[in-house]
Amino acid sequence: MFDGLCAFPLTPLSEDGVDQTALARLVGRITDAGVKSIGVLGSTGVYPYLSRDERREALQVAVGSAGDASVMSGIGAMRTREVIANAEDAQLAGASALLLTPVSYHRLTANEVFGLYRDVVSASSVPVFVYDSPGTTGFVFSDELLERIARLPRIGGIKIPPPPAGATASRLAELRGIFSPEHSIGLSGDWEAADALLAGYDVWHSVIAGIFPRHAMELADAALAGNAGTAREISRKFDPIWALFKSHGSLRVVAAIAEELGLTNPHSLPSPLKGLEDQTRSEIRDSLKLTGLDG
Amino acid sequence: MFDGLCAFPLTPLSEDGVDQTALARLVGRITDAGVKSIGVLGSTGVYPYLSRDERREALQVAVGSAGDASVMSGIGAMRTREVIANAEDAQLAGASALLLTPVSYHRLTANEVFGLYRDVVSASSVPVFVYDSPGTTGFVFSDELLERIARLPRIGGIKIPPPPAGATASRLAELRGIFSPEHSIGLSGDWEAADALLAGYDVWHSVIAGIFPRHAMELADAALAGNAGTAREISRKFDPIWALFKSHGSLRVVAAIAEELGLTNPHSLPSPLKGLEDQTRSEIRDSLKLTGLDG
Repeated sequence: MFDGLCAFPLTPLSEDGVDQTALARLVGRITDAGVKSIGVLGSTGVYPYLSRDERREALQVAVGSAGDASVMSGIGAMRTREVIANAEDAQLAGASALLLTPVSYHRLTANEVFGLYRDVVSASSVPVFVYDSPGTTGFVFSDELLERIARLPRIGGIKIPPPPAGATASRLAELRGIFSPEHSIGLSGDWEAADALLAGYDVWHSVIAGIFPRHAMELADAALAGNAGTAREISRKFDPIWALFKSHGSLRVVAAIAEELGLTNPHSLPSPLKGLEDQTRSEIRDSLKLTGLDG
Repeated sequence: MFDGLCAFPLTPLSEDGVDQTALARLVGRITDAGVKSIGVLGSTGVYPYLSRDERREALQVAVGSAGDASVMSGIGAMRTREVIANAEDAQLAGASALLLTPVSYHRLTANEVFGLYRDVVSASSVPVFVYDSPGTTGFVFSDELLERIARLPRIGGIKIPPPPAGATASRLAELRGIFSPEHSIGLSGDWEAADALLAGYDVWHSVIAGIFPRHAMELADAALAGNAGTAREISRKFDPIWALFKSHGSLRVVAAIAEELGLTNPHSLPSPLKGLEDQTRSEIRDSLKLTGLDG
């Protein structure tokens, strides 16, 4: 159900809350490109900034625009009871899977994170994916903790950040040893996607596919068919974008691209997050021209 | 108004929400000990885990039990609009000052943090203190950013984490150069308190004073009177507690102490945070006996 390319769209905001028209437009582009799974309310979907009502609204719009694509929903929150409420809302809205980041203020211990996943799978009837995002949560999963979580019922798999350079394939082998064959191992970090899919990762959790789904689909199709040359060539075309992702964070860059292309309002991020400054926006325009993505 | 000792109590929880009885008890102990300022909804007050209603409830109970002590309230949240709502609630409930941490999921830029403080002081009529807490937020303030924030109206001062060993006095000198004489420079990290007050910090933002206010008052009084020997001697008595703070985090340790002394329910922290495990609780009991604080 969640194999190959999973596109993570922005949750664009307007003055009044979720910009439903813009979100439906983004999800429509994704399904039009033939992408079969969509990750709503991921990090790019700014889930921690949204109220419970806004999350529900975003999910309803996304599921309503997703056609026959499967929707996976982020449910992370500071407190277990909020996570469980988000899980219930997401299932009611039609999400087929849940994505849980161990969000924290006081850094969580391994036992606390285990307890969180145990409590959430107990309250869920769809698969729950581990969302490993140390850059935002500050929490680092040990392999021992992953082994404990992998044995819980209804764990669907894991979404990991890009491994250190050169370790994409070896990390997959380690994760295959920790998880079972029925678990899905996915990777985020778009610049590593070609290598990751060629190495055998089950899913590419993609930010760029939220904004350029057709090109991301081409990359994924080539990699999944084992056409290494083509997949890497497509990825290389995106190099100027990957460089911007690495220096400014993928969220701010895709938000600026969406704003630039008129897909969202000019101020689509939740305060205190700001859009990128003028000079970087000008670099983004140049990158879009260079990659032929400005049309 | 916020000089000397400022005590930061827990916000103890029960199954149903804020444990109002326990919170009133903790605040009562603080004022009974003669402490003149109280920091409600600080990191120890688990503010990021509480709903807006729970924060309001905790503040009302704290202000209602504070007598003539001044109350400073934490207002941090992911989104600017929530921070401003919390600021309004806190002022309505009777807080005399606000304490703002740049909480984030996507790490904030310096300009975003500046924008946050600017927006919040514009919406507040009481002083707003900068709460520098890189261990929980992941955000590191540069001196250049602090200089920009210090020039905003209604900035009351700053609460910093303990500087690197040996740098408590020199960091104060640097901060005096960044802030103005009317700004209050305060330190958290109880094990550094004696040295900090002796060095001339204006405020000791104290976790231990939330649970042992009388002893903290003695330490603060000695240090503020310049009695270095006495202040350091009192601090040394707490060494076993400081060691536990450093290894388990002060929140989990004071929660366990409060539970141990029967000041709160046995499970006073918000899930997924758990109380400490049995072995550590036994170490805590030993430390309390050793320090004579078990009675």
